[in-house]
Amino acid sequence: MSTIRKTELLVIGGGPGGFAVAYHAKYLYPEMKITLVRKEDVAIIPCAIPYMFSTLGTIGKFVLSDHPLEELGVDIEINEVRSVNVSNRIAFLSDGTEIHYERLVLATGSIPVKPPIPGSEFENVYYVYKDFKYLNQLLKAVKDSDTITIVGGGFVGVEFAEEIAKLGKKVTIVEMLPHCLQLNFDDEFCILAEEELRRKGITLKTGVKVAEILGEGRKAKAVKLENGEVIPTDLVIITVGMRPNTELAKGMGLNLNERGFIIVDEFMRTSVPNIFAIGDCAEKRDFLTGKPIPAMLSSIACMEAKVAATNLKNITNMKMYKGIVSVFITKVGDYVLGAAGYTESRARREGLNIITETVETIDKHPGTMPGTRKLKVKLIALKDTQTLIGAEVCGGHSAGELTNLLGTLIQKQVTISELVSLQIATHPDLTASPMMYPVTIGALQMFKKLR
Amino acid sequence: MSTIRKTELLVIGGGPGGFAVAYHAKYLYPEMKITLVRKEDVAIIPCAIPYMFSTLGTIGKFVLSDHPLEELGVDIEINEVRSVNVSNRIAFLSDGTEIHYERLVLATGSIPVKPPIPGSEFENVYYVYKDFKYLNQLLKAVKDSDTITIVGGGFVGVEFAEEIAKLGKKVTIVEMLPHCLQLNFDDEFCILAEEELRRKGITLKTGVKVAEILGEGRKAKAVKLENGEVIPTDLVIITVGMRPNTELAKGMGLNLNERGFIIVDEFMRTSVPNIFAIGDCAEKRDFLTGKPIPAMLSSIACMEAKVAATNLKNITNMKMYKGIVSVFITKVGDYVLGAAGYTESRARREGLNIITETVETIDKHPGTMPGTRKLKVKLIALKDTQTLIGAEVCGGHSAGELTNLLGTLIQKQVTISELVSLQIATHPDLTASPMMYPVTIGALQMFKKLR
Repeated sequence: MSTIRKTELLVIGGGPGGFAVAYHAKYLYPEMKITLVRKEDVAIIPCAIPYMFSTLGTIGKFVLSDHPLEELGVDIEINEVRSVNVSNRIAFLSDGTEIHYERLVLATGSIPVKPPIPGSEFENVYYVYKDFKYLNQLLKAVKDSDTITIVGGGFVGVEFAEEIAKLGKKVTIVEMLPHCLQLNFDDEFCILAEEELRRKGITLKTGVKVAEILGEGRKAKAVKLENGEVIPTDLVIITVGMRPNTELAKGMGLNLNERGFIIVDEFMRTSVPNIFAIGDCAEKRDFLTGKPIPAMLSSIACMEAKVAATNLKNITNMKMYKGIVSVFITKVGDYVLGAAGYTESRARREGLNIITETVETIDKHPGTMPGTRKLKVKLIALKDTQTLIGAEVCGGHSAGELTNLLGTLIQKQVTISELVSLQIATHPDLTASPMMYPVTIGALQMFKKLR
Repeated sequence: MSTIRKTELLVIGGGPGGFAVAYHAKYLYPEMKITLVRKEDVAIIPCAIPYMFSTLGTIGKFVLSDHPLEELGVDIEINEVRSVNVSNRIAFLSDGTEIHYERLVLATGSIPVKPPIPGSEFENVYYVYKDFKYLNQLLKAVKDSDTITIVGGGFVGVEFAEEIAKLGKKVTIVEMLPHCLQLNFDDEFCILAEEELRRKGITLKTGVKVAEILGEGRKAKAVKLENGEVIPTDLVIITVGMRPNTELAKGMGLNLNERGFIIVDEFMRTSVPNIFAIGDCAEKRDFLTGKPIPAMLSSIACMEAKVAATNLKNITNMKMYKGIVSVFITKVGDYVLGAAGYTESRARREGLNIITETVETIDKHPGTMPGTRKLKVKLIALKDTQTLIGAEVCGGHSAGELTNLLGTLIQKQVTISELVSLQIATHPDLTASPMMYPVTIGALQMFKKLR
């Protein structure tokens, strides 16, 4: 006989989205019985995964503690949901338990894309699963290896490469696009990042695909590229992107889009009443074109968790901005790179009529302040409406929140003319000078062009 | 016979506002003949003044170079404007030169307030004049002193105190308000700053006025407080605020407000056609009440320079936001403190019906990241409209641009409900976690209260 439990809100998935929606819902509705079911014994902070190699040194340092949820009174079950009977609102767990729910939030996240590379079945070929035990194995394998090849030079690949190189390992990145980070940045920013990666001792093979992973017995020994080059390696890490983990949702009969993301409305509601989906498993739509885009970031998952939580019982809070701007920051060596909205190249691919402007300045003032770094900001605006639709930043530490400032300006649909008189604070040690603050100077330069 | 010169745009004042308006006007109208007249042989970056003592170590490192202006083709005259004949558009310089102008921008800045303290005429009593030679004397006098008393614990006094203490000097701040920085921050932030100042070895005397400066011959020897306490001192620096430098404007018959600031419209135009005023000498009006406020920051001067430059010939560009939000950041020891718009205490003094929320979190994630600092953010909103009208921040380096993000949200009149779903980027080394990003979490907490 199976165990039957009842809950008012069932959350499936223990990543940032699942954690956040359970946490916020319990905060907003303290009387609500909330159950979070996740497979993993231990939840982790996914953004911190690259930093396990060197900066943190151990995986134990980025566990997502259950404590805040437990303290609020959320029930956590380590278990797997096998299927859901949508009509009767019952989730069936792998141990036979049934959970009867009133509302359900799917936060099932994403899983690594496994490209069909011959030889990828060797035991020393890894992916980036967001799983404590798996990552612990990967960490150990990296420490035991001398040469490591990373397939995929997106931001995860780049962050991995840099952290692993810090351990004194010989690291090679193989990226099939002409540049690393090219899905996130325009070429000139990618080139800055690549120069910094090379300065950190990382070898880059760009514009070339992996043909095959060569090995003996159960071990990969080398990566063979399509141009014939063979890179001897002790370990391969494949990080070419993530795909939505939506097998369960598919089985439930929810509407998925053609890339497999769960279709949701502006309140994160799926096609079935009382079922929400948030985070990497849920469809995102571009803020400008409305087209589905594969934006998979825990910051977006946490935003969507707030939207779902505030609209759980009924609609009480509209989104500030319909559509995803996809604000993003990463560190590459001593550089901080950030992007919000469109890059120039993506805008041109979309056929948008744009104007761009780049300002190169410094991140402190005067430039004699200790620790002064170069700061480069690129603005992308729609020519006809003057609306800011994109920005890229490369600088020091302050480039992080500066990217968030730019993302906010895009969300508030600020025009270039407005930006000229944006009121900002400056400080010698903390920002560019008030005269050369790159956002307002870039706007003034665009204003002149548009005049 | 006097020399007569003609110019299309005459800028009076060589501080950030004057520099910026000349620079931007020449950039926008390359054919325009522009002349900048300033008294000082050498212009300096005023925000950097406190950092001459220790961080920069010399005043030569924060000279505002004439090179960018000269390169663009702006004429710089080191001279003093004695008077202006407004009807005939002629400026009379102290050497008898006449400059005939078409348009005039006054950027005459501000000068230190000199409170009527008995004994302030001793030769080792200094003010913060934004003058290269004077500051050089002050720098030398500080280096030659062991004990220094700073009268006034606003942000200039606090930045001075900290930089001078780094030289190993014994520093005391005397502040008549109950707390240092109380004009910029609510008490709990002032207290954090004060604790940090004490940790840096600075003595604070708050809630007490200076009664008299005691001395012998031409030298001050001690500062006597109204409570009778006597603080022996080798040097006194009085920094109790600035007042607008508008004697010239007064002589020209321009309309001044009751505090002596030049009254300007939204395009920085004075009461006389073709005469503009920007920066510390020009009136600022609060963004909410429209009341004149004494906001004197070079970041505001530089914003106003852009507004004047773009509207010099005719109105071509409206301000993004009418009224001054007064965004402000400073460093106190290892803390960065920022404020934008209203503090809670100022809002209460204005009788505003507000709601506040404070979030205390950390500025990296997980908290095991090296260099993680506490991050405290306070949000102040109008209760009835939910509009964000103020924010205060205390944290590490990222608090600088985070303050600018908050200032932007205020300028765009974002509501608390909107803020809940603000899209931001997060990164382990650069920001708070996506789950605890203080702006959106603070908004969610307010949202619950307001519901």
